[in-house]
Amino acid sequence: MNQETITKIEELKEYLKKIEYLSSTIALLHWDSAIYMPKEAIEYRSEMMGYLSGESYKLTTSETMKAFIDYFHGKDDLDDLTKAMVENIRKEYDHAMKIPEPEYVQYEIDKALSQSAWEEAKKKKDFSIFKPHLAKMIAYNKKFSEYWGFVGNKYDGLLDLYEPGMTTERLDVVFGELRESLVSLLQRINNSKIKTDDAFLKGNYSVESQRKLGESILGKIGYDYEKRGRIDESEHPFTTNFGNKDVRITTKYDPSDFRPAIFSMIHEGGHGIYEQNVSDELTGTSLASGASMGMHESQSRFYENILGKSKAFWSYFYPEFQNAYPELNGVELMSFYRAINCVESSLIRIDADELTYSLHVIIRYEMEKLLIDGEVDIDDVPRLWNEKYKEYLGVTPENDAEGILQDVHWSGGDFGYFPTYALGNLYGSQIFNKLKEEVPDWNQKICSGDFASITKWLKENVHQYGATLKPAELIKKVTGEELSAKYFIAYLNDKFGALYEV
Amino acid sequence: MNQETITKIEELKEYLKKIEYLSSTIALLHWDSAIYMPKEAIEYRSEMMGYLSGESYKLTTSETMKAFIDYFHGKDDLDDLTKAMVENIRKEYDHAMKIPEPEYVQYEIDKALSQSAWEEAKKKKDFSIFKPHLAKMIAYNKKFSEYWGFVGNKYDGLLDLYEPGMTTERLDVVFGELRESLVSLLQRINNSKIKTDDAFLKGNYSVESQRKLGESILGKIGYDYEKRGRIDESEHPFTTNFGNKDVRITTKYDPSDFRPAIFSMIHEGGHGIYEQNVSDELTGTSLASGASMGMHESQSRFYENILGKSKAFWSYFYPEFQNAYPELNGVELMSFYRAINCVESSLIRIDADELTYSLHVIIRYEMEKLLIDGEVDIDDVPRLWNEKYKEYLGVTPENDAEGILQDVHWSGGDFGYFPTYALGNLYGSQIFNKLKEEVPDWNQKICSGDFASITKWLKENVHQYGATLKPAELIKKVTGEELSAKYFIAYLNDKFGALYEV
Repeated sequence: MNQETITKIEELKEYLKKIEYLSSTIALLHWDSAIYMPKEAIEYRSEMMGYLSGESYKLTTSETMKAFIDYFHGKDDLDDLTKAMVENIRKEYDHAMKIPEPEYVQYEIDKALSQSAWEEAKKKKDFSIFKPHLAKMIAYNKKFSEYWGFVGNKYDGLLDLYEPGMTTERLDVVFGELRESLVSLLQRINNSKIKTDDAFLKGNYSVESQRKLGESILGKIGYDYEKRGRIDESEHPFTTNFGNKDVRITTKYDPSDFRPAIFSMIHEGGHGIYEQNVSDELTGTSLASGASMGMHESQSRFYENILGKSKAFWSYFYPEFQNAYPELNGVELMSFYRAINCVESSLIRIDADELTYSLHVIIRYEMEKLLIDGEVDIDDVPRLWNEKYKEYLGVTPENDAEGILQDVHWSGGDFGYFPTYALGNLYGSQIFNKLKEEVPDWNQKICSGDFASITKWLKENVHQYGATLKPAELIKKVTGEELSAKYFIAYLNDKFGALYEV
Repeated sequence: MNQETITKIEELKEYLKKIEYLSSTIALLHWDSAIYMPKEAIEYRSEMMGYLSGESYKLTTSETMKAFIDYFHGKDDLDDLTKAMVENIRKEYDHAMKIPEPEYVQYEIDKALSQSAWEEAKKKKDFSIFKPHLAKMIAYNKKFSEYWGFVGNKYDGLLDLYEPGMTTERLDVVFGELRESLVSLLQRINNSKIKTDDAFLKGNYSVESQRKLGESILGKIGYDYEKRGRIDESEHPFTTNFGNKDVRITTKYDPSDFRPAIFSMIHEGGHGIYEQNVSDELTGTSLASGASMGMHESQSRFYENILGKSKAFWSYFYPEFQNAYPELNGVELMSFYRAINCVESSLIRIDADELTYSLHVIIRYEMEKLLIDGEVDIDDVPRLWNEKYKEYLGVTPENDAEGILQDVHWSGGDFGYFPTYALGNLYGSQIFNKLKEEVPDWNQKICSGDFASITKWLKENVHQYGATLKPAELIKKVTGEELSAKYFIAYLNDKFGALYEV
């Protein structure tokens, strides 16, 4: 690169920093709204956030930004980091600029109406209230995807928002394989003579000790909740960050069950570890974050499930829990391990166990494909949903609230997001497979509470790169292979096959 | 006003809203930094705040702003609110624009150096480390004041920053009277045969019960800490707000003494009540805040001292405290009342009692006049300080840390700020005098825990106006008189004369 190009890169980074400052600020305002903001502040807070989002939009779509994009366009002597950076901003620019502004403004208005209609519909368990809004959200998203250049494969344009480069063609293969194996494994489990029960885990668990146990786990697995993060309580657990030195997670405590808080802390801790481990050098490149939603989910789910629901993990932490909760003294480790890995077909995605969870996601993926690229009568949507639940999970919703209306996503126009949840499971186990090769004594380490080398391996192989690599490039670089369902399938068959002796 | 003017006013308000959104955002970032931010986030946080402050500065000094100011300049058919708004933005514009930018940038750099030099100097108890920086901060501020048009009376230009319209001429009169009375009253107290002691108040007070008692008081006096505010803990108590529906206070708990937390909550609660009671109509006028620092302090000190250290107040709340802290059961109300109103000459301003506090402030006022408008050798500053402490308070610092170096203000270039602390006492008691006339059964009300009509009176007469009136206009409107020291002097003589029988 010549001196002019180098100078231009520095200028672009200075410019991108401003956008980062604004998004960090908006994220902090969100964090505060969800946790500490007094109730009556909501209206003024929305105005503040609206103003800041507008400023951020202006910077993302400015003439200055256009000039940067034009300058770097077609230059072939750029280093990889700059290439990734330029591609990223060009994509964001296009996403914003290709939708006519009046249409986008109207979309934002209709979205707000749609969200409140969904709330009402769910409360009243009545799909018909939400139906016209869902139809509108679908129509908008189809059109947007066409604007972005996806015509015959509009759903790919939406997938690409959350999982850059991912396509229906690829997902059909991996999700198809996964679905078949899961349905078959689930049937075997349902027919197993081994029945598990987790009701005995309900009890009386002080919030204070849940907090301490959670902190103990998070400290061990490598999420820094003191100097570079913090843990708060909110209605729904989430992770947010402002740079890589201020990465905050939240959880929600249930005094009658420690599992929601502990597992959501480990889950959000996984997201948090990823963000804390992104290389400092990526600040101001628009790439200082996870590679994709799916890759992010791979880390949260690795820590929550593969690690956090393993026997090795609990052989280390269980005595600490027994110490905090003497009622567990009568429960053997193996019974505890069975209880936290209880498999049961259910109707609600967010309550699903590790095994059935992906089936809930696959149902949504198949529905979204139909809604965006297929021909489907909007009236048939609840019926189609219910048929898939019956077919894959063997259960049928009694009403729309526990069926088609359960998730908020579609009401906010978020199509293409769901698949990232299941992709996380695939990436996670494929990466774990490699990790096991390179850290052969991983099981022994976990049993003895030594998580440092595991998190270090993930930092070096995954986290540090941020979004400099596309998810497909990253999985190839880490594991030497394309994305595959086989590792997750094998992992589930091993784990649950052993648990249920099937 | 004609239609064009009305439209222009609306445009100006829309523009000013943006500046308010930015200052609210910066204030929230500050709040978070002081309470919840993880340590290592400091560098990135400073960058975020620097960026947002820069954007706010740009809006305040833009061509658009200049055009608004020019448009309204000399228009004599404006309503009072618009007049106040236009004058306020013109003043801010001038303050910013009249300092050459490179000089201001250098000032910010030198200020940061000065602040860290002061920290070191205080730690090492050595004025000489801070001396050259203090000299620089003085020189900058003299020059700035000249830029703003204050030549023969440069200190007035600095006073005007915090207390619009206030002058040395006026302060010399009121502070002169106040000083004489205070010194004389203090001497009489020192010679009184009545000796008070508050050591017995030290004990073991759980933070949780301090919090509950503080909330109970704040709820009663009218600070809404639930729906429109909140209480957190920070190293130094403060109040901050983002609009009038999100007004937050902080306190600091000492498990061995409930007074720091309780009285700082009442003090900050006073600031909070003021901001919560500013009229909704002032949003987006740049006037939706207290009239001045002094007027703000009048409200915090009214609640903290005049109300919060009165016998009537404690005749209501003392049983609740005795209930929470059984060790107080053996202490009579009168002994408790004496203990919280113990008078003692001391060296440290922030630890001073209600009576001697203003003397600490007057010393700083006299020093600042000398430093800014007088001729003083920088080497003589500690000696002059110590002489004044000896003369007015009868005490002498053993070292610079408990003398000239105790306060942070000058290291940050804040000259002209200190007087507002004592002005608060004067405004507060002058307003209280009027309140007593108009709410004749005030004492009975307080005794029975009915604070609503008192806070309502303050809202109607003081709070709701925000900064639409200058402090001199406001005190005249509320009390029918110019600012005077006599009410505060009479109040102190009554209260402490009775307590010490002098």
